[in-house]
Amino acid sequence: MDNYKTLKEEAYAANMEIPARGLAIYTWGNASAFDWSMGAFAIKPSGVPYGELKPQDMVVVDLDGTVVEGRLRPSSDAPTHRALYRAFDRLGGVTHTHSSYATAWAQAGKSIPIFGTTHADHTSQAIPCVPFVTEEAVVRDYETETGILIVNTFRSMEINPLETPMTLVAGHGVFTWGESAAKSVYHATVIEEVAKIAFLTLAINPQARSLPDYIVTKHYERKHGRNAYYGQ
Amino acid sequence: MDNYKTLKEEAYAANMEIPARGLAIYTWGNASAFDWSMGAFAIKPSGVPYGELKPQDMVVVDLDGTVVEGRLRPSSDAPTHRALYRAFDRLGGVTHTHSSYATAWAQAGKSIPIFGTTHADHTSQAIPCVPFVTEEAVVRDYETETGILIVNTFRSMEINPLETPMTLVAGHGVFTWGESAAKSVYHATVIEEVAKIAFLTLAINPQARSLPDYIVTKHYERKHGRNAYYGQ
Amino acid sequence: MDNYKTLKEEAYAANMEIPARGLAIYTWGNASAFDWSMGAFAIKPSGVPYGELKPQDMVVVDLDGTVVEGRLRPSSDAPTHRALYRAFDRLGGVTHTHSSYATAWAQAGKSIPIFGTTHADHTSQAIPCVPFVTEEAVVRDYETETGILIVNTFRSMEINPLETPMTLVAGHGVFTWGESAAKSVYHATVIEEVAKIAFLTLAINPQARSLPDYIVTKHYERKHGRNAYYGQ
Amino acid sequence: MDNYKTLKEEAYAANMEIPARGLAIYTWGNASAFDWSMGAFAIKPSGVPYGELKPQDMVVVDLDGTVVEGRLRPSSDAPTHRALYRAFDRLGGVTHTHSSYATAWAQAGKSIPIFGTTHADHTSQAIPCVPFVTEEAVVRDYETETGILIVNTFRSMEINPLETPMTLVAGHGVFTWGESAAKSVYHATVIEEVAKIAFLTLAINPQARSLPDYIVTKHYERKHGRNAYYGQ
Repeated sequence: MDNYKTLKEEAYAANMEIPARGLAIYTWGNASAFDWSMGAFAIKPSGVPYGELKPQDMVVVDLDGTVVEGRLRPSSDAPTHRALYRAFDRLGGVTHTHSSYATAWAQAGKSIPIFGTTHADHTSQAIPCVPFVTEEAVVRDYETETGILIVNTFRSMEINPLETPMTLVAGHGVFTWGESAAKSVYHATVIEEVAKIAFLTLAINPQARSLPDYIVTKHYERKHGRNAYYGQ
Repeated sequence: MDNYKTLKEEAYAANMEIPARGLAIYTWGNASAFDWSMGAFAIKPSGVPYGELKPQDMVVVDLDGTVVEGRLRPSSDAPTHRALYRAFDRLGGVTHTHSSYATAWAQAGKSIPIFGTTHADHTSQAIPCVPFVTEEAVVRDYETETGILIVNTFRSMEINPLETPMTLVAGHGVFTWGESAAKSVYHATVIEEVAKIAFLTLAINPQARSLPDYIVTKHYERKHGRNAYYGQ
Repeated sequence: MDNYKTLKEEAYAANMEIPARGLAIYTWGNASAFDWSMGAFAIKPSGVPYGELKPQDMVVVDLDGTVVEGRLRPSSDAPTHRALYRAFDRLGGVTHTHSSYATAWAQAGKSIPIFGTTHADHTSQAIPCVPFVTEEAVVRDYETETGILIVNTFRSMEINPLETPMTLVAGHGVFTWGESAAKSVYHATVIEEVAKIAFLTLAINPQARSLPDYIVTKHYERKHGRNAYYGQ
Repeated sequence: MDNYKTLKEEAYAANMEIPARGLAIYTWGNASAFDWSMGAFAIKPSGVPYGELKPQDMVVVDLDGTVVEGRLRPSSDAPTHRALYRAFDRLGGVTHTHSSYATAWAQAGKSIPIFGTTHADHTSQAIPCVPFVTEEAVVRDYETETGILIVNTFRSMEINPLETPMTLVAGHGVFTWGESAAKSVYHATVIEEVAKIAFLTLAINPQARSLPDYIVTKHYERKHGRNAYYGQ
C-alpha cells in the first residue's frame, strides 16, 4: 500500500546509514521509522544484507506486533523497537547496532562516564548500561523484555529518554532513538564516537575526572535548552 | 577442465572477500572451496597478490594432496585446509588469515571469552586458542600437523566444529570454516570483529564477566537451533 | 560583497579539509580564515553539515563580533576564534575539532608529552592542556572565555603561540591556528596524529621518556629555525 | 637525462605506495631507489606532498651526496639513505616513515618482540630499536649519523640487514630497505602491521611469550631458506 511509502523510505534511508557510518557489517544492526498517527513502524526485514536492501523490502508492524504490510519477516529485534515506541513518548525512530566501541562498554557492563563536551552536547549524564535481561524474562519473551528492561531502567533511574536518547544493554549492544529514524541513527553514531573517546580517555588516564557539572549543563543547554543557540 | 569451474569461481570469490573485508594485505590469507562428491578443493595459488588473482588461477587439490588441476603451486597452507576437510564433516570451505585483532589474541595465547551476544550469535563458547605445534610435528610436516592439531584440540575439548566454526592457533593466526567458502570468510570476518570488541572490553574492564549462560544459549538457539527465527 | 570572496573560499576549503582528514563527523568542527587588513574572518555557518556546505555560506565576522557579511549564523565557536585573532599576532586561520585521540588527551586532562620527532617537527614542547573554564567564566561568556583562557594559559606558561600553534582544552577538544586557514587545519591533523602515537607509546611503555632536548631542538630548528633546510 | 629514467620511476612508484598503504600523511615519509652500477639513488624531493609528486621530480644523488640530476632539493633524509646504501650490501631501495604503530614502539624505546608467525615470515628476530643519536652526532651531521648509528647497531648486535630489513630509531620512526625500492616499502608496511599486532598482543596479555625458536626458524626458512617453498 502507498500509505506506508514515506515511512518505508525513511526506514530504508536510516538502515543504509548504519553501514555507511561504519556502525555494522552484514546484517548486524537495524533501524525503524515510527508514525504515531498510524500506530505503526517500518523496520528492516530479517536477515537481508544492507547491500541488497530496497525501500519496498521494509516491513510495517503495528504496536501490537502485527505485520500490517510487507512480504518479508521483520527483524527479530522488532519487539524491542515496539516496546520502546509503546513506552517512550514522541519517538519517530529507533536504531540498534553492535558498533565496536559502544558494544565493548556494554560487554564491560559499564555506563559511559561524561568525560567531555562531545558527550555533553548530546546528553547531560552518563550513558547508562542496562543490566542483563533476567533468565525468566529471556524465557518469557527475550526481545520484548529487552525493550521493557530499557524502559524500566530509565524510569527507575529517572532518566528522561528524550534527553538521553541512547543506551547500552549489558553484554549486548546499543539501542538509540530520536524524533525521527534519521535522528536515531545519528545518535547511534554519537554513542560510538563518545564510546571510542571515553575508552581512549581511560587508557591515557585511569583517574580521569568527569566534566564539571556547570560545563555539562552549559553545553547541553546551549544546544537543547530553551534558549539554544549552538551549532558548530 | 570445466569440472572444477564452479568450485574455482567459488574459491576465487571467497579469496577476494579477504582483502575486501580488511582481513589481510598482500598475500597474507587464503580461502578454499571444497566439494565432497569430487573429493577435491580449489585454493588460492601460492604467492599471488589478490589484485592479480583470477578465477582460473585457483589450484585444485584432492584429499591426498595431489594437484588435480592448475598450473600454479597451491598455497603453502593447503595441507592445513586438507587436514580440516578430512577430519571435519560437512565443510564446504576453509579460510586462513592473520587479521590484526584475532592474531593478537593468538599471539597472546588466549581463547576469546564469550563477552557478548555478537559472539554468542555465532558460537556458544569461547573461541579456542590451539597450542603451539610441537617441535616434532613441525619437523614432520608443519602445515598438515597444524590442521591435525586443530582437529585433535577440538576433539579433546569436545567442541563441535560445526557449532564453533573458527579457531585461533597460538602464535600464528586464524582458521575458520563453514558449509561453503563464502561462509568460511564470513566467519573470518566475525572472529576479527569479535576479537576487536573483546580486546576493548578487557581494556575498559579487566574484570569483565562472561555473558550468562542462559543468554548465550538463547542467542545461539534463536539463530542456529531447531526453531531458529533470528535475523537482524 | 566580493570583498570577502577570497577569504570565504579559503575558509570553505579549510572547513572541507576537516572531514576529509577524518577530524570530525557531521558538524563537529569548524575553521576560519582571517585577514588582518580587513579586520575580519570568514567562518563556517552554524549547524550546516560539511556535505551541504558552499563557499558562499561562510559568514564574515569582525573583531568586535559583528557579522559583516552572510545570511546564516556564524558557528557558535566564533567568539573563541575571535579571542585568538585578537590576542595572537600573525594568525591567518583557526581550526576547532573534537578529533578522537586528541580529544581523549583533553578529556584525560593531560598535556601531550614530546615523545618523538613527529611531534618535535611541529613544536618544541609538550602540547599544553588548558584547564577547565571556570564557572564564572562560563556564566559570563563561555565561548569568548574559552579563547581568553587559551591566551592567558599560553602567556602564563610563556609559550609562543607561533611556535606551538595548537592546544587542548580540558574536557573539550582541540584548537589550532596558523598563518593561514589551511595551515591551521594542517595543525589539527598534526595534533591528532601526534596524540594517537603518544597514546600508543604510553600503552606500550608507561615509563616512556621524552625525546632528549638536543634532538627536540635539532628537529624544530631544521624545520623552523633561521637556517631551516628540512623537508621529507 | 634518460640514464636515470627507470630509477626515478621506481622511486616514484615506491613513494606513492607510502600514502596508499596508510604509512604517512602529507610529506611524512620518503623512499629511494638505488642502482649499484650507477652508484646513485633517486629519492623524493624535499617538501613535495605525495598528491603533487611526479616521476620527473625525483632527485638523483650519488654516494658522495652530490645531486647528479634534478632541479629540486632531495629529501632532508637523503643522507640517512646514503649511509645505508654505503654500508649494507645488495640494497636496491630504502624507505623512511613515521607510521603510527611502529613509531609508537620507537617512541617507547622498545624492540618489537617476535610474538608470532606474521613477524617470523619476515625476520627471525625482534625488530631492533636503535638508540637515540648522541648529542655529538647530532651536531656533527644528524641525518648521516642516524644512518651510521643504524649500521653500527646492526653490526654490534650481529644482525644481518638482509635478514632483518627493517629497524626502529628511538624517538623517531622507521627505516626499512630491500633489494628494490618496492621491497623496501613492502617492509615498511610489514613493520607497521607487525607493530600493531604486537601492541595488541601485549595489551591482551602483558606476559605474552615469544614464539618458540623452532617455529620462528621454520617460518623464516620456508620463506627465505635454501629450500623455500612458502607462499600464501
